[in-house]
Amino acid sequence: MSAPFTLESLNSLPLPAFSAAVGEVFEHASWVADAAFGHRPFATVAALHEAMMGVVRSSPAERQLAFIRAHPELGSKVKRLDITADSQAEQGSLGLDRLSDAEFQTFTELNAAYREKFGFPFIICVRRHTRDSVLRQFARRLSNDAETERNTALDEIAFITRLRLVDRVDGPGKPRTEGRLSTHVLDNVSGKPAMGVAVSLYEIGKSARALLKETSTNADGRTDQPLMAGAPLRIGTYELHFAVSDYFSAKGVVQAELPFLDVVPIRFSISEPEGHYHVPLLVTPFAYSTYRGS
Amino acid sequence: MSAPFTLESLNSLPLPAFSAAVGEVFEHASWVADAAFGHRPFATVAALHEAMMGVVRSSPAERQLAFIRAHPELGSKVKRLDITADSQAEQGSLGLDRLSDAEFQTFTELNAAYREKFGFPFIICVRRHTRDSVLRQFARRLSNDAETERNTALDEIAFITRLRLVDRVDGPGKPRTEGRLSTHVLDNVSGKPAMGVAVSLYEIGKSARALLKETSTNADGRTDQPLMAGAPLRIGTYELHFAVSDYFSAKGVVQAELPFLDVVPIRFSISEPEGHYHVPLLVTPFAYSTYRGS
Amino acid sequence: MSAPFTLESLNSLPLPAFSAAVGEVFEHASWVADAAFGHRPFATVAALHEAMMGVVRSSPAERQLAFIRAHPELGSKVKRLDITADSQAEQGSLGLDRLSDAEFQTFTELNAAYREKFGFPFIICVRRHTRDSVLRQFARRLSNDAETERNTALDEIAFITRLRLVDRVDGPGKPRTEGRLSTHVLDNVSGKPAMGVAVSLYEIGKSARALLKETSTNADGRTDQPLMAGAPLRIGTYELHFAVSDYFSAKGVVQAELPFLDVVPIRFSISEPEGHYHVPLLVTPFAYSTYRGS
Amino acid sequence: MSAPFTLESLNSLPLPAFSAAVGEVFEHASWVADAAFGHRPFATVAALHEAMMGVVRSSPAERQLAFIRAHPELGSKVKRLDITADSQAEQGSLGLDRLSDAEFQTFTELNAAYREKFGFPFIICVRRHTRDSVLRQFARRLSNDAETERNTALDEIAFITRLRLVDRVDGPGKPRTEGRLSTHVLDNVSGKPAMGVAVSLYEIGKSARALLKETSTNADGRTDQPLMAGAPLRIGTYELHFAVSDYFSAKGVVQAELPFLDVVPIRFSISEPEGHYHVPLLVTPFAYSTYRGS
Repeated sequence: MSAPFTLESLNSLPLPAFSAAVGEVFEHASWVADAAFGHRPFATVAALHEAMMGVVRSSPAERQLAFIRAHPELGSKVKRLDITADSQAEQGSLGLDRLSDAEFQTFTELNAAYREKFGFPFIICVRRHTRDSVLRQFARRLSNDAETERNTALDEIAFITRLRLVDRVDGPGKPRTEGRLSTHVLDNVSGKPAMGVAVSLYEIGKSARALLKETSTNADGRTDQPLMAGAPLRIGTYELHFAVSDYFSAKGVVQAELPFLDVVPIRFSISEPEGHYHVPLLVTPFAYSTYRGS
Repeated sequence: MSAPFTLESLNSLPLPAFSAAVGEVFEHASWVADAAFGHRPFATVAALHEAMMGVVRSSPAERQLAFIRAHPELGSKVKRLDITADSQAEQGSLGLDRLSDAEFQTFTELNAAYREKFGFPFIICVRRHTRDSVLRQFARRLSNDAETERNTALDEIAFITRLRLVDRVDGPGKPRTEGRLSTHVLDNVSGKPAMGVAVSLYEIGKSARALLKETSTNADGRTDQPLMAGAPLRIGTYELHFAVSDYFSAKGVVQAELPFLDVVPIRFSISEPEGHYHVPLLVTPFAYSTYRGS
Repeated sequence: MSAPFTLESLNSLPLPAFSAAVGEVFEHASWVADAAFGHRPFATVAALHEAMMGVVRSSPAERQLAFIRAHPELGSKVKRLDITADSQAEQGSLGLDRLSDAEFQTFTELNAAYREKFGFPFIICVRRHTRDSVLRQFARRLSNDAETERNTALDEIAFITRLRLVDRVDGPGKPRTEGRLSTHVLDNVSGKPAMGVAVSLYEIGKSARALLKETSTNADGRTDQPLMAGAPLRIGTYELHFAVSDYFSAKGVVQAELPFLDVVPIRFSISEPEGHYHVPLLVTPFAYSTYRGS
Repeated sequence: MSAPFTLESLNSLPLPAFSAAVGEVFEHASWVADAAFGHRPFATVAALHEAMMGVVRSSPAERQLAFIRAHPELGSKVKRLDITADSQAEQGSLGLDRLSDAEFQTFTELNAAYREKFGFPFIICVRRHTRDSVLRQFARRLSNDAETERNTALDEIAFITRLRLVDRVDGPGKPRTEGRLSTHVLDNVSGKPAMGVAVSLYEIGKSARALLKETSTNADGRTDQPLMAGAPLRIGTYELHFAVSDYFSAKGVVQAELPFLDVVPIRFSISEPEGHYHVPLLVTPFAYSTYRGS
């Protein structure tokens, strides 16, 4: 899916068209695009984004605050007319538009507590977090002081708008916004890649787990596609499950009715949404090791 | 808890006292003890057990079948007057006397199907199995033929009576009836045993997990007591959870807000109830390995 | 270094030019090329080679034997006028043209014993073997029977000529004649590739070791160039030495005056000259692991 | 080999007999024992040693220096009449009484340089060092200042006399003077201890290696005796060699003519002579790991 604009074309548009193109990147604040217009031409997409964030960061405090206040609250259960389509899609990606009543209650209380303390809504780049991580940040940030939170809100807006911008503009120097999770299974009995190992990826929440992907290893012991890619990795905790005894049975290895190792779970957390996480498994029917690889 | 009799004293008892001492080892079948009496003196406890099983195995088929039939069904919800105290205690150890209605239903149906096919109750040494394993054996053994099942029933009776006998008789040559599960945590960053790692042991069932034990590692990286010992290990699937990031935090290692490794789960199965399972963890903040050790 | 001919051009050459181009691939046997000429056009370089070997393998036994006999002996100390430039270069690559007196004596005796038993010289594709491996094969093959050795000689000639052919002819379907040895160092303390680890590669002989390469790891924990590539890997035993304590010292890790791990040697053997050997090191100051990777 | 005296008997001896018993522990300095006599009774052997060292450390500087000067030089090639039998035996344990001419030359030059700079002989507890380590310490300590070296000499004398004392006196509270090196081989293919693996232990010197021990693993994957024990471990570098492919061949594992892993060398250094070093090997035909265990 390619972006609708190229940096080159943006650099040559007149102001109204430029603002129409990237004005919505900043929630209800096309004045940001207007002011950034003066810094053309932009050598890279990253430079365009920095220019826009520069406009925000150098605005008077009042304007910053008004801008921050214009963002929607998290976890609104009903579709609201006054949030941008981007915000709707982003919150939807986390299921924040399909909260249970109890969860809605939790978000409502946190939102209220946050707004009461800081006078603006809790802003977080939801595309970089699991739901558990959003709740953890909510709890943690509630204890910050006002200035820290204003800066944190701007940092999160930088993450949000960077993602929106790279969806709209192609060109040189795109900032890195995508992470990658990959795996690799080595059969340490035969010294060869383990082919045909069923692999499942789960997101581990406080009380439940969600199956994100089921796949299996190819002749090189890897999966044909990365386990996660093409977007930020959501900060959170995951488990990879490897069907090890099925693999060894298929290779003719005689095993106990209940093999010592059957499904091997590897639990790990992601804290760098734009990073590369390689989580391999070196395995025999009685031993395995894993590590953060590269 | 020492056994009430010594092999030496048993060897010198007259028949009535001998039968009173070990007659109940075989369910409602004091004739087994009576017949074994003639083989005195027994050099080892194992020899006594073998002599008693020899009596059963060399009995006429009719008598064997009657003997097998005299065993109680598994999973009877209500206390029944006609089963021995041993059977009650053994089934209670697995929670088979506290089944939910649905589980009771499952056991009732399996018991009925089994009895209809074979004409005798399903016999299994429950002290050697988790509840999941009992159900797995039930399903598997239902497809056996009659002769195989008669022999399997006798094998299970051998396991059951061996355990009952070592509870009653001390002496040389006790058969091995106890297994052991142990662990050991090595900190591969410092090259030293990891002290103070919280360790939890879970039994993993089809749909739930039960916490069996919580402990932590001592200065030698081991637990003061084995994780399981003093009884057969129940055939089944388990998870050890090691609180790795708490350990490294306490050592002053700087970690991400969500460390790559937090709680490390090691899932493994036990198939030898009388075996020694050593399941160590070699760990850094970014890598670990485990294996069946010794 | 590109080959002087393309398969396409070869396919269109008249017989004399064709024979001039590839006739010397088979030692003193341009008749092989002449006969293969009739099978043009060749779809792949591999097909050309198979056609030429097919000519040899389907020749009358006498002609095969004469052809085998026309090969030079191994380890001739003096330059001989009657061996092809290819044979000279191949034997030189192993140092077989610079043997010590004692080694020359060994080769002379083995050559004599072999020739006396079989009536033809010992033929081996030296570019696929270390000197130790050549001697091991010599000793082993001396105990073969005549037919096995005649077939082994032809198999070795296939290896020799395949290498000569891919040096001369470019085109589709080149047979795989190159192996690759690579490594990768992961720092399991930091969960990152280990950059700047000095790596040495040695060939391990019966009594000595020869330093083949010194390099160090880059930011990805790999070496910029494979440790060996662009040719068959010589069958033999090797050691990789990793300067682990220098690496950790440079990272500021406090270590004993004599660190537990200083230089880590990994000894392994190569038995598939055209294979890919990946030999990684996962390391902390107190632990490491290695495996045949992919 | 038990010590000739018990602490209890020493505590009750009159002065002349006490000095005869432990006077030679301090080289040509029976006055140390005489002065320590007044501190009887000693609760532990360690307390006796500390009392004797206390006498030395609280002596006037002149007397300390004279005492230090009375020690023999290292590496005297010829038996000298004026050194104690203990010193002879200690230096002999390292082969310092059988130096080659070149080595004798090295020691002579280092001794001369040291004596010229400091005015007393180089003192080191040779039983705690390999020859390479002695040379390394010699070179390092030559650059110290005089006071540091006087203190280092006393520290080394403490090590020397502690060893001599525990050879002479049995009793409670013996100071720890013995180290231990052990290993353990796990077969990660079968999940069992590897029995029958040939293990060799080498001391690795600057230019040569000395075979210290050959043994093999028992049914528990360990060696019947520790690899080194009953004395301080000499500070230095070692290699353990494990005959891995012989082991797997004996188990019927089909391997290449040159198996990927044949002899696995594990190189490590010992820096704590009184420590316990456990160096296990977890191995398959294609992978292994090792670590400092406990």
